[in-house]
Amino acid sequence: MNIAIPVFDGLTALDAVGPYEVLSRVPGATVRFLAATTGPVRTETGMLALLADATFDELTEPEVVVVPGGRVTRRLMDDEQTLGWLRRAHESSQWTTSVCTGSLLLAAAGILDGLQATTHWLELDTLARYGAHPVSQRVVEQGKVITAAGVSAGIDMALTLAARIAGEQTAQAIQLGMEYDPQPPFDCGSPTKAPKEIVDLVRAATLSRSP
Amino acid sequence: MNIAIPVFDGLTALDAVGPYEVLSRVPGATVRFLAATTGPVRTETGMLALLADATFDELTEPEVVVVPGGRVTRRLMDDEQTLGWLRRAHESSQWTTSVCTGSLLLAAAGILDGLQATTHWLELDTLARYGAHPVSQRVVEQGKVITAAGVSAGIDMALTLAARIAGEQTAQAIQLGMEYDPQPPFDCGSPTKAPKEIVDLVRAATLSRSP
Repeated sequence: MNIAIPVFDGLTALDAVGPYEVLSRVPGATVRFLAATTGPVRTETGMLALLADATFDELTEPEVVVVPGGRVTRRLMDDEQTLGWLRRAHESSQWTTSVCTGSLLLAAAGILDGLQATTHWLELDTLARYGAHPVSQRVVEQGKVITAAGVSAGIDMALTLAARIAGEQTAQAIQLGMEYDPQPPFDCGSPTKAPKEIVDLVRAATLSRSP
Repeated sequence: MNIAIPVFDGLTALDAVGPYEVLSRVPGATVRFLAATTGPVRTETGMLALLADATFDELTEPEVVVVPGGRVTRRLMDDEQTLGWLRRAHESSQWTTSVCTGSLLLAAAGILDGLQATTHWLELDTLARYGAHPVSQRVVEQGKVITAAGVSAGIDMALTLAARIAGEQTAQAIQLGMEYDPQPPFDCGSPTKAPKEIVDLVRAATLSRSP
């Protein structure tokens, strides 16, 4: 089973690496990082580079697609090479998924037309403008399309997907192997839980940084 | 503030990228991925490479050290180049931290002598053999030394550390920016919570894969 993670300069690292960490543990799965050309792809901070090992042309019919996000996705929403690859891959995929603003690319490719979907909480409105029905939910399943909320939600999405692909027992073993028993030091990971001043802080900072 | 993440072939990607995602959002922080030589470093599956942008010699006095793990750490426990760099960096660091079996390297370097510490749940015994007092806890703080449990625990550790470095409000804003409101599909992320058959499955699989 080929699992393709398309990557691009400016992506958010955890959007891609969270699902990679889960899905690479699915028996028989091969995760491949793809880009227009092979070589290093810098994350949005510039402080980390992931290597794209294959080009879009080399893997056009993966069984699973995981699209990460990052602020750059807004700029890629009219990039025909990326959107064309997504449309073609989605035709034959068993699962088409996204993390964070990766869903904006799925929406721009027409893949979310009329479907419920999610994205980073700051971009739910953008998703609506591109034909999807935005839902404030951590993981949204619509047939073979699964979208996840911001950044860290990709881990929850990938465990859900691992259970669909390989069964609940395998997904549970993966979760235990990764010791994914989250204990965040604060209870402020969603805008409905965080104090208003923290929500305002993040809204203001998005001009320069998030999601 | 320089935050150094030493990386090595065979590391577990999320051990490094979870803390990177949090700490790169701390205002004024620069995260640098270091290795013996610069260039691609393959994770344990071989399916992903991170780029080391600097050598150990280029950054000997980082303010923060984050040591990731992976099965390979057992082999590195007598690697004098790695241990020497850790000892030297720890002398002047403000914070010395680890994720998963990264703590085995800290222990081998003598940094955990007599301290409480944690690691992946499968390796707590190994930690004890190297002079630390193992604790089954997600994040263990001992002065400037902070160790985290397996793989995904690095995110919780890094948020704890971000609060120490930059204050709780900033750490909370980072958590919200990453939408870290975890909702794992199963409640089996620790050996005390998982069904016995899942624990046995992971124990058996570690011969070939985890932690």
